[in-house]
Amino acid sequence: MAAPVELRVRASGGEYPIYIGSGLLGEADYLLPHLGAQALLVADAAVADFAGAIERACSGRGQFGRLLLPSPVAKTAASLERIYTRLIEGGYSRDCTLIALGGGSAGDLVGYAAATYQRGVDFIQAPTTLLGQVDASVGGKTAIDHPLGKNLIGAFHQPRAVLIDLATLDSLPERELRAGLAEVLKYGLIADADGFFDWVQGRARDLLGRDPGALAEAVRRSCGIKAEIVQADEREQTGARALLNLGHTFGHAIEAWQGYGDWNHGEAVAAGLVMAADFSWRSGRLGLDDAVRIRGAVEALGLPSAPPAGMQPEDFLRLMGRDKKNRAGVLRLIVLNGIGRAELIADPDPDLLHQTLAAGGGLARG
Amino acid sequence: MAAPVELRVRASGGEYPIYIGSGLLGEADYLLPHLGAQALLVADAAVADFAGAIERACSGRGQFGRLLLPSPVAKTAASLERIYTRLIEGGYSRDCTLIALGGGSAGDLVGYAAATYQRGVDFIQAPTTLLGQVDASVGGKTAIDHPLGKNLIGAFHQPRAVLIDLATLDSLPERELRAGLAEVLKYGLIADADGFFDWVQGRARDLLGRDPGALAEAVRRSCGIKAEIVQADEREQTGARALLNLGHTFGHAIEAWQGYGDWNHGEAVAAGLVMAADFSWRSGRLGLDDAVRIRGAVEALGLPSAPPAGMQPEDFLRLMGRDKKNRAGVLRLIVLNGIGRAELIADPDPDLLHQTLAAGGGLARG
Repeated sequence: MAAPVELRVRASGGEYPIYIGSGLLGEADYLLPHLGAQALLVADAAVADFAGAIERACSGRGQFGRLLLPSPVAKTAASLERIYTRLIEGGYSRDCTLIALGGGSAGDLVGYAAATYQRGVDFIQAPTTLLGQVDASVGGKTAIDHPLGKNLIGAFHQPRAVLIDLATLDSLPERELRAGLAEVLKYGLIADADGFFDWVQGRARDLLGRDPGALAEAVRRSCGIKAEIVQADEREQTGARALLNLGHTFGHAIEAWQGYGDWNHGEAVAAGLVMAADFSWRSGRLGLDDAVRIRGAVEALGLPSAPPAGMQPEDFLRLMGRDKKNRAGVLRLIVLNGIGRAELIADPDPDLLHQTLAAGGGLARG
Repeated sequence: MAAPVELRVRASGGEYPIYIGSGLLGEADYLLPHLGAQALLVADAAVADFAGAIERACSGRGQFGRLLLPSPVAKTAASLERIYTRLIEGGYSRDCTLIALGGGSAGDLVGYAAATYQRGVDFIQAPTTLLGQVDASVGGKTAIDHPLGKNLIGAFHQPRAVLIDLATLDSLPERELRAGLAEVLKYGLIADADGFFDWVQGRARDLLGRDPGALAEAVRRSCGIKAEIVQADEREQTGARALLNLGHTFGHAIEAWQGYGDWNHGEAVAAGLVMAADFSWRSGRLGLDDAVRIRGAVEALGLPSAPPAGMQPEDFLRLMGRDKKNRAGVLRLIVLNGIGRAELIADPDPDLLHQTLAAGGGLARG
């Protein structure tokens, strides 16, 4: 294989690498240096082939176990319990390493297991979806869901390495590919390094067509932006990291309203990006032309640019009130002061917010 | 009330105070500065009176909730779930503060809930047993038990403050008082600051008689030694913190063998201290006179100085193999090179260890 791109992320516990390349997961060189004497690979059963490649690459090096979880991986207490039980029964000690192979859910779940087993063991992120590669795998956020809400139980726990094998994208369902592109577009909106937003908009067809060069570039630049942000605010304390939530306050409300069964995360975020642009325009922060460009880019990626039919402003307000970014009951929102210039604000103007919610990100109907 | 003693503990997230005094929990001055806009007091139902005192002291300051857990508090996934549900249903956001009121189990459980709710919220330790005051409440170790083992699921999460109200000891059952004294004696063995071991031995009757001055001094000196050690090794990485586990490798095995239903933690540790002294003597590290003094001190505190009848060397070896201190299957043990001089060793001599286990800490029967 060609040598992978390597990015590095500084974190309180030490620096860790992100490797981006095609065929990585079969290469011992990128796996073994990060493994302890005992390793447990926990994988989404849908990517069992890649699990086999990892296992072959690691063969003969200490204790190596494999646990396949039913696909799609559920970020539940029950899944967590399966991992704990396997670790305990297998005699895994505190110097073991977990490998999380699968989408963002697998990464969040296995990362959280690593954060809490024996008060913390090492883990490696091996994301196999575009969404996981550009978002969940970098930055150390781990979590499971609670029956009363998503991601409510979790920890910050940095991986020892992130192995992004672009070959995993070949078999990714079309709809999941688009979901990942919503997050890619988000990076162009919050940090327009070298005109990344324009680049994404211009290469929309290539990205949807899985052009390997375009996808590699999208992953590299997205991870680079995310790495910059998370190393500036590892534990979400300064507000810098909150910018990564652009579009997510609306998006999470959409997902919750649908009961997490209809749109996927990226689709909900896509509509949320347009709504954030709409609110930014209504509050005089963003030009109408830029807001319209954002909507156009979302649509060019085949993603929804408005909330689901039937969802009312009251639904949004009720569900947005539960957002983890909020402080002491005050709503916080990420807005755009221009493309590539995001800002966290507290207590957004309720009238303007209501207009955005009523217009459904419509931009022209306010 | 008289002004409390204040110790300070340095930690990666900032320094935190330990206040030691009588009547603290009814004093707003020691509570309010450490609370966020929302606070949830989670208490062992056995100390509901102190919960009431805290609630009165905090009245009128933002949202304040109270959750009483059945006594004795179970460090289980089910207890944790009760806390999460109460937090979510009560609309507690990431800037809330939990208050853990009760023994070491309450502190471990509530601390772990704080470590993981919304990826970490603040918490205050308000320990109401001597064991909790001198051990569990300081240092940021939090955990719950797994059906397959104690404390296997947890996190390092430092409290914002530790409030040790010595008035809580007035109603502490005699047997729990003695259990706490086992840990006090341990501090004298691992760090004999100013002859602390001699002091404990000399004041054994006063301590058992709940002399307020003696108990205050025992708590202050124990917390001081623990603070020194945990700030040198916050996340148990250098081995310094492992010294706090003197006697615990044997003690944990005893507790596990009994199914956690017979001796309490302090009683098991007491026997473990004598066994550690026995092994240290057999391996030429500790004089026989010192080993005998240690056994005498344990007995003067009314604590068991030998393992339970019927427990075989094979039982110890099997259960000690699961200790979290072990690395890659190699047993690690804390030994004494003298009173006040503890050391972590790997792979203790199996023959000598077997002699200790067979002699049951008997010292003379080897």
